[in-house]
Amino acid sequence: MNIAVDAMGGDRAPEVVVEGAVAAARRFGVQVILVGDQDAVHAELAKHDPPPNAIQVVHASQVAGMDETPTDVLRKKRDSSIRVAFDLVKSGRAQAAVSAGNSGATLAVGTVVLGRLDGVERPGIAGVFPTLTGRTVVIDIGANVDSKPNYLYQFGLMGEAYAQVVLGVPQPRVGILSIGEEDSKGNELVKKAHDLFRTGTLNFIGNVEGRDVFAGHADVIVCDGFVGNVVLKLAEGLASAMGVMLKKELNADWRSRLGGLLAAPAFQRFKARMDYAEFGGAPLLGLRGVGIISHGASSAKAMMNAIRVAGELAAGDVPGRLALALGHRPASVPANTKNRPG
Amino acid sequence: MNIAVDAMGGDRAPEVVVEGAVAAARRFGVQVILVGDQDAVHAELAKHDPPPNAIQVVHASQVAGMDETPTDVLRKKRDSSIRVAFDLVKSGRAQAAVSAGNSGATLAVGTVVLGRLDGVERPGIAGVFPTLTGRTVVIDIGANVDSKPNYLYQFGLMGEAYAQVVLGVPQPRVGILSIGEEDSKGNELVKKAHDLFRTGTLNFIGNVEGRDVFAGHADVIVCDGFVGNVVLKLAEGLASAMGVMLKKELNADWRSRLGGLLAAPAFQRFKARMDYAEFGGAPLLGLRGVGIISHGASSAKAMMNAIRVAGELAAGDVPGRLALALGHRPASVPANTKNRPG
Repeated sequence: MNIAVDAMGGDRAPEVVVEGAVAAARRFGVQVILVGDQDAVHAELAKHDPPPNAIQVVHASQVAGMDETPTDVLRKKRDSSIRVAFDLVKSGRAQAAVSAGNSGATLAVGTVVLGRLDGVERPGIAGVFPTLTGRTVVIDIGANVDSKPNYLYQFGLMGEAYAQVVLGVPQPRVGILSIGEEDSKGNELVKKAHDLFRTGTLNFIGNVEGRDVFAGHADVIVCDGFVGNVVLKLAEGLASAMGVMLKKELNADWRSRLGGLLAAPAFQRFKARMDYAEFGGAPLLGLRGVGIISHGASSAKAMMNAIRVAGELAAGDVPGRLALALGHRPASVPANTKNRPG
Repeated sequence: MNIAVDAMGGDRAPEVVVEGAVAAARRFGVQVILVGDQDAVHAELAKHDPPPNAIQVVHASQVAGMDETPTDVLRKKRDSSIRVAFDLVKSGRAQAAVSAGNSGATLAVGTVVLGRLDGVERPGIAGVFPTLTGRTVVIDIGANVDSKPNYLYQFGLMGEAYAQVVLGVPQPRVGILSIGEEDSKGNELVKKAHDLFRTGTLNFIGNVEGRDVFAGHADVIVCDGFVGNVVLKLAEGLASAMGVMLKKELNADWRSRLGGLLAAPAFQRFKARMDYAEFGGAPLLGLRGVGIISHGASSAKAMMNAIRVAGELAAGDVPGRLALALGHRPASVPANTKNRPG
């Protein structure tokens, strides 16, 4: 199992990416292929002491800029680190690709290079949110705006396969994000999607509301990518703002300051629970292969976890599971390869 | 100034509503007209000692059920407490109506009884969110799904008038909620609305993202009612889930428990800052008069604050300001009445 990692993607690349890759190799025994400017990557690698034979470097002469349009990257950056990482997956040399670079370009390159599974109209991006009882998968968090009812149903299938592998739930409860629990509540998109979910194969629990996301009422929550992206960024922003407000109150008087110091380990545990870096990037689902889009501001820890999740998705054959759920076998990722004797 | 309050609306009506009304009269010197079953209301009033002449009771023989459709309430409940409260505003006996009852019915009854201002295609519901620097108004939080670009622009005008009066900001910064700051980011609705905002009279600051809501980058954030309702409930759910998680961590060991006890006043201040009950209900904007929709689970404190805000909106003549911004004088609420000599 090899994970191709775009060494040039992210606000602090290649430094942070290389550090995360070395940590993933050391901690999870993952094989990593770092893709990017070989001199820069080797210079960063020299600062660490990676496990022997755990890390390869593949050269890519170009980098996709953060402001470049996906179309420009597809046309003019055929030797960009993002592109070469996905080419390695396509050729079978790697089993998954990870990039913290230009996310629109990663989505476009991943889709063009790997191709969509039969029956998938649009790939979706899944996010994992912490809940009171565990974790929940929200899909789509930004690949598609102005979705159609079919897309939402396909997001449901993608979310199911992902939750099975990453959350370990055999029959994930799937809900549609809406503005009331009753079937009649929602916009046109949600109401039309309802009929597809009612008659489909998913373990469909109906509409869920914004407040249900963190209560853990569903394992998979489906929504249009505009709504999902707003939700993702709102949750990040609120968690961060609450942290700032709480810190301010804890510093307001000596009694609270002392209390805050004593409770520091509790705050640390709480922070770790809310920390997006723990969840390791957002998978691009619906493709004939595994791709992970990481946050541009990813820390080395976030990159390490993204590489770990990429390995889990490839080992759990999420594309194969999804293809089966869609009623098709994928051409390039046969579902049963791993269990076949001999 | 009289505020008509639906005494029968809300999960714990009339008890909690009457308690909140008495508190508003006592604390803010507001005159309240309690509308509902007169025997039940008088029985509750007898438990308190309201300031003399501060509270009147107007009988209504019906109550709108929580499960009744707006259409049914409009047709069959012409003597419901919600309806009678808005009738009092229409006739000029009250200057604002407040209900914590069936919110769909309140929206419909308020719209039908008071009528829309010229130039308003759809009334919007505004919510106030706490931010790092103060407060921000989000509109629409649930009156309209599948909005059109025109509606969003009108929500912007409504939000501006509301923020001027309630937040005291002379020229509120208005943004559109989207999935990226660039003008090109968003769904079809947002992109089309952009052109209207660019050429309009508002202090338009462009797109804002979910994470900007709590950072305080805008005074007014405009969105479709489906998105706004998801945002509202997600924020409530996340704040509540974070509280539960933090409490659990603080109880995990003796050192954290002691720290939590010492820091209790800080937690109280923090909680008050995040408490939706402080903001007192969501105004229904775009009508020829003032209406407030309160949460069904409102406490007496929340009702008290809703009555206070209703008084502020009427005193600040929000409908008149909005009518001027729309380029029209409202028929029933002349904008300059208050300042006219004699």
